[in-house]
Amino acid sequence: MINTPDFKADDHLLPVVAQDATSGEVLMLAYMNREAWQETLGSGVAVYYSRSRGKLWKKGEESGHIQHVLEIYLDCDADTILLKVEQLGGAACHEGYASCFFRQWQDDGSLKIVRERIFDPKQVYKNK
Amino acid sequence: MINTPDFKADDHLLPVVAQDATSGEVLMLAYMNREAWQETLGSGVAVYYSRSRGKLWKKGEESGHIQHVLEIYLDCDADTILLKVEQLGGAACHEGYASCFFRQWQDDGSLKIVRERIFDPKQVYKNK
Repeated sequence: MINTPDFKADDHLLPVVAQDATSGEVLMLAYMNREAWQETLGSGVAVYYSRSRGKLWKKGEESGHIQHVLEIYLDCDADTILLKVEQLGGAACHEGYASCFFRQWQDDGSLKIVRERIFDPKQVYKNK
Repeated sequence: MINTPDFKADDHLLPVVAQDATSGEVLMLAYMNREAWQETLGSGVAVYYSRSRGKLWKKGEESGHIQHVLEIYLDCDADTILLKVEQLGGAACHEGYASCFFRQWQDDGSLKIVRERIFDPKQVYKNK
């Protein structure tokens, strides 16, 4: 088994699952390249690679909703990272929910919002 | 927001987080294409797309460690799927652990196995 994340190249992205260390709730999935991984290790807060912005993204840099990384796990193939985090502000999702997975699939093929909003995105992201 | 998984093309793969519905443990990360998603919805058990084998992969087809899908969530961008599952056999990982994330990153840069093995892979995958 590989003993470090298997970044095949510097620009290779690995998926990262962020899980709330206390509640166990899966908060979000994001990506890291090697630099983001090293920044995360060095800083103790989650730093991802934003595919839409094409650059490193310190989670919470705009909203203040930083993720303190408490534990890190690698999977058997070393190509997925699991972070157990303390989510500041109580919400990981830019839509204002604790978890990005706030919509549950229904048998009729619709999606139902099954969480309460923690914050109003318009108040947090004022320049958007 | 998009209301179905955002498969941009039939061969596009989306990451899927499987979480134990009872314990909340993150079991594994795998991928689905549109066909795997439809097979999962139709069958009620997790069907992924194996990148290494290049075909659909009904989880547990060899080991018997099938995942019954109890709840399905989509994230805000509709590009990640979260399954809450009942994991038959108590182990999701082909290495014999309950979770594929059985190795924890240590401050010295090593990985430590922090879970107990549930089964012996040599006994389960006899043709390997």
